[in-house]
Amino acid sequence: MEETLSGARIDPKRLYASLEELGAVGAYDDEGSGLKGVNRLALTDAERDGRALVVRWFKEAGLEVSIDAIGNCYAERPGAVAGSAPVMMGSHIDSVPTAGRFDGCLGVLGALEIIRTLDARKIKTKRPIVAAFFTDEEGCRFGTDMLGSAVATGRIPLDEGYAKTDRDGLTVKAELERTGFLGSEPIGLRKPHAYLECHIEQGPVLRSKNLDLGVVTGVQAICWHELEIRGRSAHAGTTPMSYRKDPGVAAAKINLKLREMTASGEFGPDMRATMGVIRPVPGMINVVPARVVCSADLRNPDDDAMARQEAALIAYYKQVEKEEGVEIRWKRSAQTPRIRFDASVQETIADAADALRLSHERILSGAGHDAQEWSRICKTAMIFVPGEYDGISHNPREYSTEKQCSDGIFTALIALTALANED
Amino acid sequence: MEETLSGARIDPKRLYASLEELGAVGAYDDEGSGLKGVNRLALTDAERDGRALVVRWFKEAGLEVSIDAIGNCYAERPGAVAGSAPVMMGSHIDSVPTAGRFDGCLGVLGALEIIRTLDARKIKTKRPIVAAFFTDEEGCRFGTDMLGSAVATGRIPLDEGYAKTDRDGLTVKAELERTGFLGSEPIGLRKPHAYLECHIEQGPVLRSKNLDLGVVTGVQAICWHELEIRGRSAHAGTTPMSYRKDPGVAAAKINLKLREMTASGEFGPDMRATMGVIRPVPGMINVVPARVVCSADLRNPDDDAMARQEAALIAYYKQVEKEEGVEIRWKRSAQTPRIRFDASVQETIADAADALRLSHERILSGAGHDAQEWSRICKTAMIFVPGEYDGISHNPREYSTEKQCSDGIFTALIALTALANED
Repeated sequence: MEETLSGARIDPKRLYASLEELGAVGAYDDEGSGLKGVNRLALTDAERDGRALVVRWFKEAGLEVSIDAIGNCYAERPGAVAGSAPVMMGSHIDSVPTAGRFDGCLGVLGALEIIRTLDARKIKTKRPIVAAFFTDEEGCRFGTDMLGSAVATGRIPLDEGYAKTDRDGLTVKAELERTGFLGSEPIGLRKPHAYLECHIEQGPVLRSKNLDLGVVTGVQAICWHELEIRGRSAHAGTTPMSYRKDPGVAAAKINLKLREMTASGEFGPDMRATMGVIRPVPGMINVVPARVVCSADLRNPDDDAMARQEAALIAYYKQVEKEEGVEIRWKRSAQTPRIRFDASVQETIADAADALRLSHERILSGAGHDAQEWSRICKTAMIFVPGEYDGISHNPREYSTEKQCSDGIFTALIALTALANED
Repeated sequence: MEETLSGARIDPKRLYASLEELGAVGAYDDEGSGLKGVNRLALTDAERDGRALVVRWFKEAGLEVSIDAIGNCYAERPGAVAGSAPVMMGSHIDSVPTAGRFDGCLGVLGALEIIRTLDARKIKTKRPIVAAFFTDEEGCRFGTDMLGSAVATGRIPLDEGYAKTDRDGLTVKAELERTGFLGSEPIGLRKPHAYLECHIEQGPVLRSKNLDLGVVTGVQAICWHELEIRGRSAHAGTTPMSYRKDPGVAAAKINLKLREMTASGEFGPDMRATMGVIRPVPGMINVVPARVVCSADLRNPDDDAMARQEAALIAYYKQVEKEEGVEIRWKRSAQTPRIRFDASVQETIADAADALRLSHERILSGAGHDAQEWSRICKTAMIFVPGEYDGISHNPREYSTEKQCSDGIFTALIALTALANED
C-alpha cells in the first residue's frame, strides 16, 4: 500500500479552496454571528448551482459522471481490473438552511481531491473509484433524511421518494426535473466493493480529546416524530384560563419533557432530544392557537433505550391530551436503528491513520449519514474530522481547520487505495 | 326619549343579513370546525373589499362618508342643531386570520341599522349621528391594536402609525395607499359629544348568567411583550445536551411560566396570559433553533396587579437567560392601563335596556376596544352582547343569535338617540 502510493500527498490548500468555493454557492449573511452561512436546501436553485459546480469539477478531472433516477451523482475513475466492483467514497452537498461549508462537502470534495492526487501521480488501482454525492441527505426540505442513498440502496422505493413533498407541496420528482437532475441511470445498479465516507464530527468529542481523527464504529439510533396538536383558537383577552385548550402550552410541555427525559438518565447517558419545529396557527399575539405543528428528534446509541424513550414519549402525549384538553396526532417520519460499521474497514482506516502518525479513537456517530444506507449493501466505515467551537454544526460557525480536513482526507486516500487494491 | 322614538324598532333580520353578507367577504373553509371562517386582516385585499361594501351601504343610506388620514371611515347623519358635536357609534371590520363574523362588525353594522331605522321613521335628533369603522383594531397585521382610533384620538402620532410594518415589511401608509383608503380628512377633527360601541362579549360571562346584555364599565389593563430569544443553532443529533443553548426550550419555559402565574392567584383571580406567537429559526426538525421570536399577551383588571405580574415576568426572563444560556431581547409593543367608562353613559344604556325589559349587569371587558381610545376625548361606554359556546371568539365558531344581536342594537338605538338629543 505504502509502496503503490509512493509518497503521494493530497494538496491541503487545493482541498480547502474547493470547500471555500463550493461554500460561496448559496451563501448568506448570518446576522447572529456576522459570518457567511450556507443555505443550500436540496433541489433548490442554490443546490442546483452547487451540483453544477461539483459536476464540472468531476468532468474537469476526466471522470465519467452518471446521474441516477433519484438525482444521486456518481463520478467514476476506472480500475485496472475490468468489471471489478468499485470502491465508493461519497457524501452530500445539500445543507440545512443555516449551515457551514464543511458538512457533507468535505466528503465529496475530499473524494475529488483523492482522485486528483492519484491522477497527478498516475497511480492505478485494481478496482474503480467512485466519488459520489446523494440527494437530500439533510431531510430538511422533503422530510426524510438520507433520501438519495436510501433510495439507491433499496430502503425507500423510488416512487415513494418521488412523491415526497416540501412545505409548498412541490414533489421530489418535480424538483429533480426542474433542476435538471432527474437522471437516467436506473436505481440499484451500484453495488460497491466497499463504501468510505469522511465527514466532520459535528460534535465536541474529538476536539476536546485533542485527537486528529475518529474511526467511526456506527451511527446511533434515530427517530423523528411529526406532531399536530389540535386545541381551540380563542381570544387571548377574554377567554378565562379555565376555558382554554392551548396547543402551544401542550407543545411547551412536550419540549420540556424531552429535556427532562435526557437529563433523567433513565434512557442512558447519551439520549438526545430536540424540538426544532414549533408552528402555531394562526400564530398571532392575541389569539390562543387553534393548533401547533411541532417535532421531536430522538437519538440514542442503544436500540433498547430508544424503544423505551419513544414509548415514554408517546405515553406523555396521552397525558398532555388529558391535561390540556387537546388532541395530539403524530407520525414517525424517520426511524433508523443503531448501525454498526464493518470492522475490517475500521481497521483499514486505523492502519492508514497510524501510517500517517495521526492520533485517533473509535467513535459513534451522533448524526445520520449516507454511509449508514450503503452499509446495508457493502462493507462500510467512516472517518470523522474534529471541529472547532465544540464541533458546532448546522450553523455558520461550523469550522474545521485546513489541517483537520486534510488529515482526514489524507487518511482516506490511503484507506481508499488499500480498499481499491483488494481482490 | 320613548316619545321621540315612538315605537321605532330595528329590523333584526336586516341587521343579521348584513352581518352575513359582510362575513362572506374574506371567508375561508375552516378545517377544524367545518365552518366558514373570516380572514380579513387590516388593509389586505379582503379587508379592502369589506370596507368597500360597508361604504356602499353607508352611501345607499344617504350618509356623507369621510375617510381620515389613517383610513378610519365616518358616515354622518345630520342633526337638527347646526354645528353641534355628533354622537359617534363605531367599531371595526378588520379581523384576526381565524375569525367569526361578529367581532367588530356588529358595532359597525348595528350603527348602520340604527340610522336606517331612524330614517325609516323620519326621526330627527338634535345632534348628528356618526357611524364609523377604524383601521386595524386587531393589531394582528401591524403589531399595534386599536391603531386607527389611537391615531384619531391622538395617542399615537400619525407618522408613527404610518411607519408601522407587517411581517413582509409593508408599511401602514403604503397599504392605505394601495387599497385606496388613505383619506384626506385631517387627524383630530372629530371630537364627539359621546361615543357608544356595541360589541360581542367574546367571553362566557353573560351567557353563563343568562343575561340579555352587559353594560361595560371599562377595559382590563393590557400589556404585550414581543420577545426575541437568541440561543445557538446546532445539530440535533451530535450536540450533547450539556452544550446546548436552545431558545425553543427557553420559550417553552416562559409559556409554562405564564400559565403558572395565572394559576397561582398571586396576581388576582382574573390574570390572563397567552403566548400566541412562537417562531423558531430555522424551524427544522434536526436543528436546535438559533433563535425564537415569541410573544406574551398579559391582561389584568387591576393596574397594580398588572405592574407586579409584568415585573415578575421580566425577572423570569433573566432567570431563563441564566438557566438556558440564551439572550432574551424584548419590547413592550402595547400597553394600556385599566380604562373606566363614563358612569352617565352606562346609566343611559342601563335605562334603555330597562325600557326594553332586557336583563343586564355591569361587566368589565376582557378585550381592548376602540371605545377605550375615544373614552379619552369624550364620554364613552359600551354594550356587550352574549355569545354562544362559552362566548368563543377569534374563531369561526364565534356565534351570537339574531335575538342577542338585535337586543344589543335595539338598546343602542334608544341610548344613542337619547345621547343625540342631549343639549
